[in-house]
Amino acid sequence: MATGTLLYSQSGGVTAVINATASGVIAEARARKVKVLAARNGILGALREELVDTSKESAAAIRALAHTPGGAFGSCRYKLKSVEADRAKYERLLAVFKAHDVRWFLYNGGNDSADTANKVSKLAAEFGYPLTCIGVPKTIDNDLAVTDCCPGFGSAAKYTAVSVREAALDVAAMAETSTKVFVYEAMGRHAGWLAAAAGLAGKGADDAPHLILFPERPYDEADFLKQVKKVVARVGYCVVVASEGIQTADGRFVADSGGGKDSFGHTQLGGVASYLAGKVKDELGFKVHWTLPDYLQRSARHLASKTDVDQALAVGKAAVQFALKGQNATMPVIVRTADKPYRWKIGSAPLDKVANHEKKFPASFIRRDGYGITDKARTYLEPLIRGEAPPPYGKDGIPTYVTLKNVAVKKKLPKWGG
Amino acid sequence: MATGTLLYSQSGGVTAVINATASGVIAEARARKVKVLAARNGILGALREELVDTSKESAAAIRALAHTPGGAFGSCRYKLKSVEADRAKYERLLAVFKAHDVRWFLYNGGNDSADTANKVSKLAAEFGYPLTCIGVPKTIDNDLAVTDCCPGFGSAAKYTAVSVREAALDVAAMAETSTKVFVYEAMGRHAGWLAAAAGLAGKGADDAPHLILFPERPYDEADFLKQVKKVVARVGYCVVVASEGIQTADGRFVADSGGGKDSFGHTQLGGVASYLAGKVKDELGFKVHWTLPDYLQRSARHLASKTDVDQALAVGKAAVQFALKGQNATMPVIVRTADKPYRWKIGSAPLDKVANHEKKFPASFIRRDGYGITDKARTYLEPLIRGEAPPPYGKDGIPTYVTLKNVAVKKKLPKWGG
Repeated sequence: MATGTLLYSQSGGVTAVINATASGVIAEARARKVKVLAARNGILGALREELVDTSKESAAAIRALAHTPGGAFGSCRYKLKSVEADRAKYERLLAVFKAHDVRWFLYNGGNDSADTANKVSKLAAEFGYPLTCIGVPKTIDNDLAVTDCCPGFGSAAKYTAVSVREAALDVAAMAETSTKVFVYEAMGRHAGWLAAAAGLAGKGADDAPHLILFPERPYDEADFLKQVKKVVARVGYCVVVASEGIQTADGRFVADSGGGKDSFGHTQLGGVASYLAGKVKDELGFKVHWTLPDYLQRSARHLASKTDVDQALAVGKAAVQFALKGQNATMPVIVRTADKPYRWKIGSAPLDKVANHEKKFPASFIRRDGYGITDKARTYLEPLIRGEAPPPYGKDGIPTYVTLKNVAVKKKLPKWGG
Repeated sequence: MATGTLLYSQSGGVTAVINATASGVIAEARARKVKVLAARNGILGALREELVDTSKESAAAIRALAHTPGGAFGSCRYKLKSVEADRAKYERLLAVFKAHDVRWFLYNGGNDSADTANKVSKLAAEFGYPLTCIGVPKTIDNDLAVTDCCPGFGSAAKYTAVSVREAALDVAAMAETSTKVFVYEAMGRHAGWLAAAAGLAGKGADDAPHLILFPERPYDEADFLKQVKKVVARVGYCVVVASEGIQTADGRFVADSGGGKDSFGHTQLGGVASYLAGKVKDELGFKVHWTLPDYLQRSARHLASKTDVDQALAVGKAAVQFALKGQNATMPVIVRTADKPYRWKIGSAPLDKVANHEKKFPASFIRRDGYGITDKARTYLEPLIRGEAPPPYGKDGIPTYVTLKNVAVKKKLPKWGG
């Protein structure tokens, strides 16, 4: 049995399944008799020495974590800079790790977290402190390098496809006398992954979504409006899915056009769907509705993809195994071994290859006309939303999500000045 | 066996379960060997003689209707005025009914539809045409008189409560360094039913939603902002649920403040959540996110309440039974016979008592401070979101919603001039 403590921490925007990864980590560590502490609010909790003792949680609570959205220990948006610029913070981290005999550090997040874990591992080596750092993948943005997909994305993708399908049935029923155009705004400031997933909602040429707007293609307003008009003439209604990150040819975010200040100086929070809906109404005169699902799309554990839940659990379990084997500065990744039938396994990637790299959305996934997805995109995306893994529901009709006790570990160091 | 045709038609905004009612109607009529036609796009299809023959649909398709959202035959927003004002239309309806030997007319909708069914029944009597008209309840607004609740509401309510719970877990995890206030906009232009249902998301004083804004209480901006500030100080974050229908003390809709034209004359489509989020940002300086689920909340069949699905099926079945018994100008309604345990049965209401009445949201359901729901509200609301009735999913990860063939019935009359 290994001695020492394993520290687990969540970072960046949470997902429907990041707690499944946490559940995988804790269950695997318990099976190997390794003590797991978790940092509150990501790396901030590590810096502040705000740690919780996961051994105080029941086995049932840890199992329930696997079906609970959000981030059970808190997450954070807090990026450490280079070791040179933020040396005091990195040294503080090592001091906290030493004080609690942390020998394994698992950082569950995206690019930035992989980078931080990588840097911490290098500094530990420089100080001669034995520490194994493991990055654990998570992001609904699906933009991590090396891994075939990112835990969190599949569930957000399933939410997107199902929601678009359902809303489209509503619009189809009402179009004769009411709403003719519906705009759905998908997350994805930098890449069109989630907007593309909406394409799984339909298969035929006249199925919704009829138009997808990708950040990878310049937004051409005149052409967009022409397409909307054509679809309404042909199908009777038009469902548009727009990525929040779409930009005009000169690089302006369309979302920024929708907001700003009104004539009274009040902030107008617009966004892409609001902007596009306004244009459709003004220029084409169609009745229009729009939706901004916002956090609902990344927290909808009730509609999680089973593939995604399985992978989130698996990377958690693998991260512990990697850690205990001393595979320092690595990340467990999803390797796709076959498309039909879809098969995957866990592989390993050096953090150097993940940190500060970004997986781009492939041009080959976008249909030639720019408004839909290709068969290649379907082959990639569909397995990721496959399977259902509903949470248990209480008698009150609400999923029985768990709230951990999060019992604080006694601090051993002076308060952090950062 | 009765002879003649039963005509079924959907009206107004569709719901996650109106097709379950259609499924109940068709299955029950088939069991009794009664032919069912359906009008395309609600009463418009009846006026235009655009009817479809439901006997062309397989038994499997009719069963699948019960788990398919939207409106399978199309619905419409089209209100007939008084018999005096719209006499030609009412007479046209009777002509179409006669041409197709329609002896039972089932109109599935809200107040207006009950009113139309009632007027058609009176005109038929005046003309000596034997016709039994049945209103079939449906509305996510839950504002029909007599019935304890309305099919469609329970599922939208469940969507609201679950979505708020899930998003709140996301916000709670991120609040330390990111979003501190989240605003959810619920449908309900005239009454706070769905906003109230969000209250089921939490039970404790610090559980989300922390503040609910009802259209029944004047929106007091200064007090609202004070409350948000207090909640953030106490809990660390604040989840607000606002009904789209909230108004200031002088009767202005807050939603109208959020929209309008920007300085370029472009339409700004705002809404309540956008407006409130802007205020929180400007006045309190908190990072804020907001969601406008729009049609997602009324089409989310994947998250339907089993109680609601059961009731939607039951009113469909009962409507056929009422029709065949000649219970003219009535509506099957939900009667609550017990709260704990919740029990209900189908009763009957005269259309006169339903048409043009509106069930108000009870003042006793709103907490004294105006920002939450009472135990009485919970007792009423909770059974309506109880139970799950998920649709079957395909191998592609998407629910297998059915699209009917909707085979047109040959027209027998000259084209309608209306």
